[in-house]
Amino acid sequence: MIYLTRRETFNAAHRLFKPEYNDEKNFEIFGKCSNPNWHGHNYVLYITVKGIPDAETGMVVNLKKLSQIIQQYVIEKVDHKNLNTEVNFMQGRMASTEIIAMAIWEQLEQPILESGAQLYKIRLEETENNSVEYFGK
Amino acid sequence: MIYLTRRETFNAAHRLFKPEYNDEKNFEIFGKCSNPNWHGHNYVLYITVKGIPDAETGMVVNLKKLSQIIQQYVIEKVDHKNLNTEVNFMQGRMASTEIIAMAIWEQLEQPILESGAQLYKIRLEETENNSVEYFGK
Amino acid sequence: MIYLTRRETFNAAHRLFKPEYNDEKNFEIFGKCSNPNWHGHNYVLYITVKGIPDAETGMVVNLKKLSQIIQQYVIEKVDHKNLNTEVNFMQGRMASTEIIAMAIWEQLEQPILESGAQLYKIRLEETENNSVEYFGK
Amino acid sequence: MIYLTRRETFNAAHRLFKPEYNDEKNFEIFGKCSNPNWHGHNYVLYITVKGIPDAETGMVVNLKKLSQIIQQYVIEKVDHKNLNTEVNFMQGRMASTEIIAMAIWEQLEQPILESGAQLYKIRLEETENNSVEYFGK
Amino acid sequence: MIYLTRRETFNAAHRLFKPEYNDEKNFEIFGKCSNPNWHGHNYVLYITVKGIPDAETGMVVNLKKLSQIIQQYVIEKVDHKNLNTEVNFMQGRMASTEIIAMAIWEQLEQPILESGAQLYKIRLEETENNSVEYFGK
Amino acid sequence: MIYLTRRETFNAAHRLFKPEYNDEKNFEIFGKCSNPNWHGHNYVLYITVKGIPDAETGMVVNLKKLSQIIQQYVIEKVDHKNLNTEVNFMQGRMASTEIIAMAIWEQLEQPILESGAQLYKIRLEETENNSVEYFGK
Repeated sequence: MIYLTRRETFNAAHRLFKPEYNDEKNFEIFGKCSNPNWHGHNYVLYITVKGIPDAETGMVVNLKKLSQIIQQYVIEKVDHKNLNTEVNFMQGRMASTEIIAMAIWEQLEQPILESGAQLYKIRLEETENNSVEYFGK
Repeated sequence: MIYLTRRETFNAAHRLFKPEYNDEKNFEIFGKCSNPNWHGHNYVLYITVKGIPDAETGMVVNLKKLSQIIQQYVIEKVDHKNLNTEVNFMQGRMASTEIIAMAIWEQLEQPILESGAQLYKIRLEETENNSVEYFGK
Repeated sequence: MIYLTRRETFNAAHRLFKPEYNDEKNFEIFGKCSNPNWHGHNYVLYITVKGIPDAETGMVVNLKKLSQIIQQYVIEKVDHKNLNTEVNFMQGRMASTEIIAMAIWEQLEQPILESGAQLYKIRLEETENNSVEYFGK
Repeated sequence: MIYLTRRETFNAAHRLFKPEYNDEKNFEIFGKCSNPNWHGHNYVLYITVKGIPDAETGMVVNLKKLSQIIQQYVIEKVDHKNLNTEVNFMQGRMASTEIIAMAIWEQLEQPILESGAQLYKIRLEETENNSVEYFGK
Repeated sequence: MIYLTRRETFNAAHRLFKPEYNDEKNFEIFGKCSNPNWHGHNYVLYITVKGIPDAETGMVVNLKKLSQIIQQYVIEKVDHKNLNTEVNFMQGRMASTEIIAMAIWEQLEQPILESGAQLYKIRLEETENNSVEYFGK
Repeated sequence: MIYLTRRETFNAAHRLFKPEYNDEKNFEIFGKCSNPNWHGHNYVLYITVKGIPDAETGMVVNLKKLSQIIQQYVIEKVDHKNLNTEVNFMQGRMASTEIIAMAIWEQLEQPILESGAQLYKIRLEETENNSVEYFGK
């Protein structure tokens, strides 16, 4: 079994807040990440798939195909976007790194399966100091 | 003469646009960077000062003091902020990396001079692929 | 289950040696790392906790809180310190990357548990070429 | 149990192709990676071994010894070499990152075992965007 | 005056050798870099242009346009290629980092000038340890 | 004219202090960097030489030769050493990054000249956030 990882990046705006709270309460819970005027990040996304290298090609998955899937189902929807207001798969969800990673898993699991590989891990870096990993459960 | 560089980071939202243009024209000129709903970046800021090391301390400038100046005059004003709408020294200016770097120079030149060093260069990275340098003229 | 990682750094002096050996024997076993006059590193510490994102906040743990715990229980005790002589939780222990990582686990396990998360992994980089991981057992 | 990782690098030429296919078919399957005139990479290799730190030395394995093993059994054979034509342990195999990682495992498993540690993982980065991991099965 | 830098990457094969020397003499002068069967690198290319930010757009140059020029005149010609045998602008030249950087300058100087900016510096990294800079003279 | 840069690393202990001051005064001026029990860093050293590529070899300087000079005159003297007490060329000098960079210049200027190149710049990184550059005057 080989675990293959593709790195992609996107730049987006977001904020952490609960719409039912006022700004003071949001600041109390989420700190400066709750700024009502938004802030943003250069997100770094690592997609890991697992599989047995094909006997013919020596590859778990065609990397160009994998990159296209990530572009189509994730990057095009989030790059240079507002994660709270413009991304269909984030509607009604907290735009925390944890929830974004889980939502990206949902986007990619089926298309990657159809390409012949199996999604194993989502790793999402918000900054050089903060990152999360999600394995689908 | 020694050139000493301090690295600081900030995360902010912005967009590139001219308020007198409509969205179509802004998109034509600025591409996806003009998204009206904002996007954002992890900016990396390198401040270079020059000077002759002090005979007593061996230092061009006290690094803690330099970091405090950068925090007070720049980072506190831009970190987790919207560069277009919330930053006083960016009012009425295009929030391009070029103009942000020039504006940061204006913020830091005098306070650094008063600390005994001389500002030499502002380097601002918007992404791992794009950066600018400004020498004050 | 989400695995969330916080990166912190500290700079410290250390040496590898057994007090019951003489300098020659220490050099034979530990090489230049046994230098009696010390050497040092910029250590990079990655703390991974695991948990289910809170339904209210979307977060496994408040990152500011997590960072404060790491600062209080580890960084303040080791940063700009001598790991062999000044760090209470390293007394009588070999200051190898392996043992430092295990000792940091002991420092953090309980405080992180009390904050509502669960410590999952300590990763400690001594240099860009050498690092260790410890999972608590 | 401690997992200790050593990083080494090598620069090599390679191409992806099946000798029984013509250039057109190879290009169709492997894209520009099939260029008959070769291309190359700065490979970054992470070798992870696992073990219990020695009670005497506090170390899982002597890092200088581990580095020597990796140099002797892998780096000297692949650095500044053509992975398709000059590397004995790659003869008759596809020079994909997946297969190279698996072949490196075979090279290192026994010598590392004899040094007193146990090989746990091979991680091989072909570019900053593409990498694989292999655990020996 | 603003100095704006764009980073691009390419992967290529090369060797250092003089065709009029035999393999022994080439090895004596160029070491393992002279391997007749090629080796390769992940080259990192930094293109710096200088100019005054446009009063209308706040930009020295349109980054998408600059990236397209670099792609068309350099990357498409060298990526996944053999620098010694396949690159028209390297014909008859030593494929050293120094000469490649100078050749890239020649490729880019005029097209960048026509785009309204002025080429200032080529920086080319062959490995994380080796790089060159060229300013056109 | 080509500017060629070689990167080398060393790990060392140091402290900032004036022997004629007591610990309180040293702490007041140098902060935690004055810890009498030492601390340390992974220093990253960038040596830039300038020259015209040799018509025969296409190289400004033989990189293996340049690396040997840096090893012999700098790295072997400072790696895994105490910069305050064990390095002959730092005797009686403040072990600040500024002064270390200037002292390294003195060590390398003549040997590099004799190898046929000309030392242009010393860049020394103490941490990812702090670095200095020195041009020999």
